[in-house]
Formats: sequence, C-alpha cells, structure tokens
Amino acid sequence: MSQHRGRLAGFIIDCQATTDLDDAACFWSQVLGRAITPSDASEDAGYVVLEDVAGEPHIELQRVTHEPRVHLDIAADDVTAEVDRLEKLGARRVESVRDWWVMEAPSGHRFCVVPSD
Amino acid sequence: MSQHRGRLAGFIIDCQATTDLDDAACFWSQVLGRAITPSDASEDAGYVVLEDVAGEPHIELQRVTHEPRVHLDIAADDVTAEVDRLEKLGARRVESVRDWWVMEAPSGHRFCVVPSD
Repeated sequence: MSQHRGRLAGFIIDCQATTDLDDAACFWSQVLGRAITPSDASEDAGYVVLEDVAGEPHIELQRVTHEPRVHLDIAADDVTAEVDRLEKLGARRVESVRDWWVMEAPSGHRFCVVPSD
Repeated sequence: MSQHRGRLAGFIIDCQATTDLDDAACFWSQVLGRAITPSDASEDAGYVVLEDVAGEPHIELQRVTHEPRVHLDIAADDVTAEVDRLEKLGARRVESVRDWWVMEAPSGHRFCVVPSD
C-alpha cells in the first residue's frame, strides 16, 4: 500500500544564475559546516549537494532563473497521490519537472513533491 | 569557551500579512504532519511554532511585511562572534532584532543568527 503522506525531504537553496553557484555553495558550506559533495553526473548540472549531517535535513543548492529563494522538498512514495492530497489542502500545481512536481502553497511559497529514494 | 560556529537551528516560513497566519499554519501543519504548538505569550505574537519532530529541523511560521520566503536560522552560543565570522565569509548585517541578527548571504538569501537555547 502506498504511503499517502509526505515527509520533509530537505531544503533547496535556489540561487540566481547571476550568482556563481560554486561560490554560493562554498559560502553555505562554511556557514553550515558541511562539505560539498562533488558530482560529475549530467543530471546534477546546476545543483550542488551539501554533505548530509545526522539529525539535520538534506540541503542542496540549485541554479534558478528567478529571485533567490529557499524551498522545501516533500518526499512521497506516491507523488501523484501526494500532489492530489496537497491540492485538496489548497496548494496548486505549478509545473511537472522530470519525476517531481513544483507546487505553490496558499501562503505563496513554492515547494516540490519529489519521489522518496 | 564560546562556540564560534553556527549550527542549523531551523527554518522559518515567512508569510505575508495579507495571508491569514493561522490558515497558513494549518496548511503547513497538514503538509508536514506536525501539530501546531499553541502559545499565548506576547513575544510569540506573529509567530506559529510547529511541533518538533525527531530527526527533522525546527519549523515555525512568521508574519512579515515582505514577500513570502523561507529563511534559515543559524544558532550560536555567541551571536556576535558568529555574525563576525559570517561577515568575513561575505554575509552582510541587515538588522539587529531583539537578541538576534538578520543577515544577507552573498547569494542574496536573508537568514538569521539567533542565540542557542
């Protein structure tokens, strides 16, 4: 049976394309005391993942075209069911990207529903 | 000896005054599966704290006059020393509020340095 509930997967620090993503990652790495996890995978282009720390959420940086933001990622075993649930709570679908959905909360905050690992 | 390093204290969901804070708290409470922690303390006016969950960061909502945002709180035993450290890393001081500092990262993200409990 699918888990029809989300869980907090982590936070994404959205950085504008005018900001050097490596510089931004270096800053946040030092603020949070987390190493940068290097990746050469093509699907990771535009992303920098910070090392996970026990008891703290997953954090990564992402290059975006909009203003700087921090957004939540909600993980679900069944993304479609979770998107439906959140829509009933008042969120709206913004865009489907690869295997996740970008949504907007009634409070105006963008967040993503992503598949559980 | 003071701890001259920050640690991630949690995330604040900044909600515009045009959004009903209780409605927003109700939405995020249901998204994250965390109860709302009621408070009648005057210093908590304009804030709604969600119940802490083991292994997940502290999350609260705050009424603000700017656009909706999510911001990080960095906790430090010595706020002044941590603000100095982060300034050397490229952050700038924005405003001192009660016993914390609002800062801006070189990536444009606002965050706060707050005293450790």
